[in-house]
Amino acid sequence: MSQTEKMGLKPLQTIPLRQVAIQDDFWSDRLRNVIETVVPYQWDALNDAIPGAEPSHTIENFRLAAGESEGEYYGMVFQDSDLGKWLETVGFALSKERNPELEKLADEVIELLGRAQRPDGYLNSYYTVKEPDARWTNLRDYHELYCAGHLMEAAVAYYEATGKREFLDIMCRYADYIGTVFGSNPGQKKGYDGHPEVELALVKLYQASGNRSYLELSQFFVEERGRQPHFFDEEEKERDAAQGQIGRKKRRYDYFQAHMPVREQKTAEGHSVRAVYLYSAMADLAAVNQDAGMLEACKELWNDVVQRKMYVTGGIGSSAFEERFTVPYDLPNDRAYTETCAAIGLVFWAQRMLQLEKDRKYADVMELALYNGVLSGISLDGKSYFYVNPLEVWPDTANFRNDMHSVKVKRQPWFGCACCPPNIARLITSLGQYIYSANDEERELYTHLYIGSKVQFEVDGKPVQLSQETDYPWDGQAALQLSLEMPAEFTLSVRLPGWCRKSVIKVGGVETEADRIENGYAKLKRTWKDGDRIELSFDMHVEMVRAHPNVRENAGKVALQRGPVVFCLEEIDNGSNLQDIVLSGDAQFDAHYEEQLLGGVTVLTGIGSRSVVPPESSGSLYTTQPFDMVSVPVKAIPYFAWSNRVPGEMTVWIRSR
Amino acid sequence: MSQTEKMGLKPLQTIPLRQVAIQDDFWSDRLRNVIETVVPYQWDALNDAIPGAEPSHTIENFRLAAGESEGEYYGMVFQDSDLGKWLETVGFALSKERNPELEKLADEVIELLGRAQRPDGYLNSYYTVKEPDARWTNLRDYHELYCAGHLMEAAVAYYEATGKREFLDIMCRYADYIGTVFGSNPGQKKGYDGHPEVELALVKLYQASGNRSYLELSQFFVEERGRQPHFFDEEEKERDAAQGQIGRKKRRYDYFQAHMPVREQKTAEGHSVRAVYLYSAMADLAAVNQDAGMLEACKELWNDVVQRKMYVTGGIGSSAFEERFTVPYDLPNDRAYTETCAAIGLVFWAQRMLQLEKDRKYADVMELALYNGVLSGISLDGKSYFYVNPLEVWPDTANFRNDMHSVKVKRQPWFGCACCPPNIARLITSLGQYIYSANDEERELYTHLYIGSKVQFEVDGKPVQLSQETDYPWDGQAALQLSLEMPAEFTLSVRLPGWCRKSVIKVGGVETEADRIENGYAKLKRTWKDGDRIELSFDMHVEMVRAHPNVRENAGKVALQRGPVVFCLEEIDNGSNLQDIVLSGDAQFDAHYEEQLLGGVTVLTGIGSRSVVPPESSGSLYTTQPFDMVSVPVKAIPYFAWSNRVPGEMTVWIRSR
Repeated sequence: MSQTEKMGLKPLQTIPLRQVAIQDDFWSDRLRNVIETVVPYQWDALNDAIPGAEPSHTIENFRLAAGESEGEYYGMVFQDSDLGKWLETVGFALSKERNPELEKLADEVIELLGRAQRPDGYLNSYYTVKEPDARWTNLRDYHELYCAGHLMEAAVAYYEATGKREFLDIMCRYADYIGTVFGSNPGQKKGYDGHPEVELALVKLYQASGNRSYLELSQFFVEERGRQPHFFDEEEKERDAAQGQIGRKKRRYDYFQAHMPVREQKTAEGHSVRAVYLYSAMADLAAVNQDAGMLEACKELWNDVVQRKMYVTGGIGSSAFEERFTVPYDLPNDRAYTETCAAIGLVFWAQRMLQLEKDRKYADVMELALYNGVLSGISLDGKSYFYVNPLEVWPDTANFRNDMHSVKVKRQPWFGCACCPPNIARLITSLGQYIYSANDEERELYTHLYIGSKVQFEVDGKPVQLSQETDYPWDGQAALQLSLEMPAEFTLSVRLPGWCRKSVIKVGGVETEADRIENGYAKLKRTWKDGDRIELSFDMHVEMVRAHPNVRENAGKVALQRGPVVFCLEEIDNGSNLQDIVLSGDAQFDAHYEEQLLGGVTVLTGIGSRSVVPPESSGSLYTTQPFDMVSVPVKAIPYFAWSNRVPGEMTVWIRSR
Repeated sequence: MSQTEKMGLKPLQTIPLRQVAIQDDFWSDRLRNVIETVVPYQWDALNDAIPGAEPSHTIENFRLAAGESEGEYYGMVFQDSDLGKWLETVGFALSKERNPELEKLADEVIELLGRAQRPDGYLNSYYTVKEPDARWTNLRDYHELYCAGHLMEAAVAYYEATGKREFLDIMCRYADYIGTVFGSNPGQKKGYDGHPEVELALVKLYQASGNRSYLELSQFFVEERGRQPHFFDEEEKERDAAQGQIGRKKRRYDYFQAHMPVREQKTAEGHSVRAVYLYSAMADLAAVNQDAGMLEACKELWNDVVQRKMYVTGGIGSSAFEERFTVPYDLPNDRAYTETCAAIGLVFWAQRMLQLEKDRKYADVMELALYNGVLSGISLDGKSYFYVNPLEVWPDTANFRNDMHSVKVKRQPWFGCACCPPNIARLITSLGQYIYSANDEERELYTHLYIGSKVQFEVDGKPVQLSQETDYPWDGQAALQLSLEMPAEFTLSVRLPGWCRKSVIKVGGVETEADRIENGYAKLKRTWKDGDRIELSFDMHVEMVRAHPNVRENAGKVALQRGPVVFCLEEIDNGSNLQDIVLSGDAQFDAHYEEQLLGGVTVLTGIGSRSVVPPESSGSLYTTQPFDMVSVPVKAIPYFAWSNRVPGEMTVWIRSR
């Protein structure tokens, strides 16, 4: 490929999930909650067994496809993907601990998938049940390959956790069949899905199966995207000629990131979840193919997102309409869309960029999205979800105004379009993958995230265990302890978080300089021996964050951040009319842990001021008199924990003088 | 009526338009522009003769109704009302100066109306052409009485200007027929229109014709509104039973101000134009019927609007969805709907409240809406219009975001739903009605507005002329000079504007105290003689206006106002990123007139500060470093004159420290 310039990219390697065990005050409960509560709850949801929630019909759709039930298909065209995300979550959960009962459920539904699969390998409940003759007639709108992708990811996770090949084989058969349908040969479709997903899934399938044709198919889909003549035009012509399925409302192709070939795209456009799934696949291909041109494209897109289109919470996609990116610096807080899935997709992409570039800046964004824009999507009890994650909520207004119709004041039990709940579940159960990376060639272990855990890895074929202890994200201390049979020389590369102004490293209790600091990672190269202990201390001050002056919604405002956690004000703690609270530029905040609050969180307390509101009877809406101001206590809670008490106002950005 | 308590309300009397001649630097050009440019332009529009504009079809619809043309009805169901507003404008224009050519056009179209009228008096082109058997089957949605109302208003204006009865007679015949259809007798409909308008028009028709049944019909419509069993439910049942015309999307009845009987309504709800048209009729009925209960209802609604739901420009209706009022203090600037027609309706209502209550506070709002929220709806050349009048515009965002789809960055030549352009034209041509009022019983002339003009009135049957000279709104001086045959004792009541902190009155060059000041009016009771001259001097300082702290969008911001004129910043004068400009609390502004700018306006200049924007290459969207600030010149132009140069950003509210 002419535009591909080979170079010596040496990406980090992901440590397989089964080698990482999380034991962490903050995350273990969440992980257990997902496994013990969310997974069964979501199984019930997939089976329409949750009273009051919108029906899912996902399992029933596959029974219909297998010819084992009678009735109509129900649900979105991409309902299959919910089962994919659930099964992937189950796979991740089983990596941590086998669970015969859960495995039995999964095996049964995998068998159902096998029975629903057509003899040629095709596996999609919507088309099989509803339009058996219309396969591959509307890639633009009908999510056929998207669903395939989620099932592929699930199959890989389940195989890696259990070693059972059945699901993997089903999906390889499907991928083989897809490979006959799509491609550059005569009679094949030069197409791709309107919703990227299969591209990154095929890379995983390649890695799990070793079958390089899946990698090539992924690359085909990515490179074809946005080329002329445009596939979506071509397939529409075919639909029109066949008077077949009517396409949905026509959209501009930037909605699908198909407005130009991906290597030419310089700005993040369109549906934000689709965007980051595509960019993740592009990063995968850059890594696997040593493709510097593709990496450059990823970097340009990354800069556009994080420098112009990302909320301070790591949320992306500021428009409810088309769930999309808009124009630079357009980040309204009260109409933020910031879909939970988009923040999750940003974590996926950030991890891939981090492995490629070994630069802390990617880990900073990954961590920011994880602790804020992702985690806000799930309630503390794991039973209700935000699809949309605004940074300001005014319940009276949000409940009334049509232009805020997507904003919910309370998390909802499930959704008609239930993409976010299972997506958050699979991210939390796979969190172990994001903490460390290996750089085998350099005999190096990277620590990206501070999460209490044990990781197994090898140096010269000998097992090494690193145990991490920390009270993160409430405290900036982390201790890493090594356990190994014989001393071995290798490098520990520990991330110095971007939010930290001062960090101290001690080895064996003695303050130590890193051998060198590279891209925000402190490198400690030693001959390490059993029991060696590294203590990291990251100053975790309360920071007042300001947005670029071009972000009009945040002009004159600050957000409070401490460590990776962004804070917010809730009405229950601060009274109503939160917009009236003003912080001085040198306001001091005290951080303390409240064990009884919101499952145990660190809160920030300080002093602000607010107007003396004239009595209602005085009645003037406008006045030429400045308002008197009075001092008021201000209490901020972590953004992710908002809306777990009574419904009320919330704001992340606070006026500052 | 039991709930009606009679009391001695003595409303002021409107001075007929033909007795007031405007000669004013600010308004005469606008008036001439409407008469010489807008009226012919709108005539062309009604006749689909404007290249590039959406067709209106209004005249052609009447030709179809008269059986004089072949084809299909085209346009909104309320297309007839556009002709009503145009003819009313023509009537007002002819009050100023007869114009045979224009009168001939009008007479011809009035004859067409006569031919389109059914033998029973019915006159509506939509139903006559399209659904002749479906009259009065969908009062809720189809604007039948609304259209009747606009034609009635036009007939009254045309009659008062020309003395010709033909149009008046046509509309009386229609009103007589309507009176047979609607009422409390068996077989009559206990109904009313979804869009109030006929109610205030019937009061005018009563006043012009002396036929009291029109007043009673108006009262019937107003009092029935919102009663149970609900008329809209009843007519819907009938439609369903007849399988007739399908109603439009069902809405909550507060949209129509029909959620409860009008006397029980305490808050302004629903579609804002409908609301103020209804409230105007309620005020009319309070005045004509000496109905204190109705007046009380009006006052409660007034307070809700001006204390909780009105923009600083006098715009009302903050939601594009349903063009409606929302919840208290919900006044977003960038998504303000603030339809031009709603501000016009507020002027109508304010004038009626002013006549009833003789209180400056109503004149203040009337003047505020007139110079800001109304006048912003028309370009300086009178050829393009805003339907929606936001208080902040960010072109890139407004053009991109779907939740701002109603916001236009430039005025448009005409609209598919063309209610605003003819509405603004009829207000400007009838402006003479708003300047003065008589209080004959008290031998008193009120001056409400400062607009260069001559008004004729009588004292004891003898003619008196008052000439007003002023450079308002750019200058707070006004001189009133009397011309009368013989000395006569009467009272001049002059409004001391609410925006003015200090006013001086001179009579015959000598500073004088008013005899008394009542509700913001200075009363000068004298035996006046020919040539007496009263000089009024109102201190016109630049004021920094603050919104109630509950208005979240304006927290920490000020608006600049001088006299009745609200100012704004435009990008062309201040650069982009207007939200970054900050004024100190004691910022001083200089006001000076720029003859060459925007047809001649006073501008405000001062000093503000703004952030030193980090270079794009530094790239951070968020930072913990405060931005350096630099002083910048700030230039504000009158809000009404925005968007008459190049498209760009605009903001009324400016950050303040």
